[in-house]
Amino acid sequence: MYDVIIIGAGISGLTSAIYLKRYGLNVLLLERNVPGGVLNTIPLIENYPGIESVDGATIAYNAYTHAKNLGIEVKKCEVLELVNNKERKEIITNKGNLSAKYVVIATGRIPRRLGIENEDKLIGKGISYCATCDGALYKDRDVIVVGGGNSALIEAKYLSDICKSVTILVRNNTLRADKIYIEQLNNNIKILYNKQINKLNIKNDELTSVTLKDGKIIDTSCVFVFIGNDPSTNFINKLNLTDNNGYIIVDNNMKTKIDGIYAVGDVINKELYQIVTAESDGAIAAYNIKKEFTN
Amino acid sequence: MYDVIIIGAGISGLTSAIYLKRYGLNVLLLERNVPGGVLNTIPLIENYPGIESVDGATIAYNAYTHAKNLGIEVKKCEVLELVNNKERKEIITNKGNLSAKYVVIATGRIPRRLGIENEDKLIGKGISYCATCDGALYKDRDVIVVGGGNSALIEAKYLSDICKSVTILVRNNTLRADKIYIEQLNNNIKILYNKQINKLNIKNDELTSVTLKDGKIIDTSCVFVFIGNDPSTNFINKLNLTDNNGYIIVDNNMKTKIDGIYAVGDVINKELYQIVTAESDGAIAAYNIKKEFTN
Repeated sequence: MYDVIIIGAGISGLTSAIYLKRYGLNVLLLERNVPGGVLNTIPLIENYPGIESVDGATIAYNAYTHAKNLGIEVKKCEVLELVNNKERKEIITNKGNLSAKYVVIATGRIPRRLGIENEDKLIGKGISYCATCDGALYKDRDVIVVGGGNSALIEAKYLSDICKSVTILVRNNTLRADKIYIEQLNNNIKILYNKQINKLNIKNDELTSVTLKDGKIIDTSCVFVFIGNDPSTNFINKLNLTDNNGYIIVDNNMKTKIDGIYAVGDVINKELYQIVTAESDGAIAAYNIKKEFTN
Repeated sequence: MYDVIIIGAGISGLTSAIYLKRYGLNVLLLERNVPGGVLNTIPLIENYPGIESVDGATIAYNAYTHAKNLGIEVKKCEVLELVNNKERKEIITNKGNLSAKYVVIATGRIPRRLGIENEDKLIGKGISYCATCDGALYKDRDVIVVGGGNSALIEAKYLSDICKSVTILVRNNTLRADKIYIEQLNNNIKILYNKQINKLNIKNDELTSVTLKDGKIIDTSCVFVFIGNDPSTNFINKLNLTDNNGYIIVDNNMKTKIDGIYAVGDVINKELYQIVTAESDGAIAAYNIKKEFTN
């Protein structure tokens, strides 16, 4: 049995792990995919204090190396269910069961789907949720970006350097993005307001064009979708820890309503989802778990 | 008149400034001393995610450079009083008066004094609150560290590599520090429990020894004091924004009870004082000020 199991090796989980290990606790970090989580999909970060410009994967790699060099144990597996027993938490994974006195949930969010026909089928062949991951596949081609927030504009800018043209489809009549991202748009980026995709048109299993709700057809090789995210909380469905949108509710100490279960980072209900807020969450959870241990 | 004036260029103030500038607001950053604040006095930081080992001054320098390169205006002055007028905040400084729609207080804390005779007079000649700043002055000499928390142990370890011997005086019978710092102690560090200094003994204007409350005399060239910190909030005495210890009370958005006045970092009442929590505070205050502007 571990003192603490942290579910998710994104930046909040990594920070929790670093703090907990340094507090002298016996910690295990679980990750189903690649350490760093959503950071791996962010091409450009310019508001991380002290680093003027960096890609998310670099921050992720450095934090993961930091954790590994502290001797933190990492296990690759998917958590299927978290069971709350009185004296310990049971973690059911696809590679066996684990238990710990404390659990930190740091599972983050996944990109929201458009929710239209053939979307899943076209992933990698005309649908993407990550410009950093898939942008190069569409070099010198015409692509579409869906969304009007910071992510959509950052990714559009990134794609505009690789692709022949970028067309941004915004659902309503305004951009929600910060001024700095709006100012960075260039001539290779066209914005169309009040547009939504109705249909993905396919030839030979690949996307060829989209039909908009107003009937207009736009030829394109890929639709990059940046319309928000949903928290990854399926494995705690039975525990009733979330709000109506699936985000975990925590107090100021990052504690859920169940003793011994904490949550940090993008998976919690909060106002501002940033690297610095995720790291802060991770440190605060670790600090409070240590305090409970000491008492 | 500025949109936002940030008082204090420590890491929380710098983070606020970086976010606010990127949101497109007209910001001015005030600093009475050196940018980076308390970071400049921390010899070793090993829990900043992604950087395994670094001195505080490096983090401070990088964040300050980041802010400067964004075009953030910085003014060196000391704020004497913050006056709350209805439509704008007036900032009385030793170099004239300034005004802004919003103020972010990020003035941090200063080291607590022992509160004994001759203490102020001996600063630089046998009394120090910063091993990084003054350690080299006492190379190959015997020094005393007062305190039993993380700071005391980190600084003692730092001094043990420079000085002939380090004696830690702990007021009660236990160390409050994290396990990792206790494990790092070495043979050149001696810990004495239940000891307090009663008198600083001087010869030729320099410290020569201390007399403890139990009458024992210890020869020493310098006493390094790490017994906590007090928030720098004298300039808002009339505004009634603080708790009994002088820390500013804020809500989850980092807002004080006065509209338009926010506070972040070590100067606020909170549980965990860390770089990552200070950065998070700074980002959250900026985000909420931007939201107020947009509405």
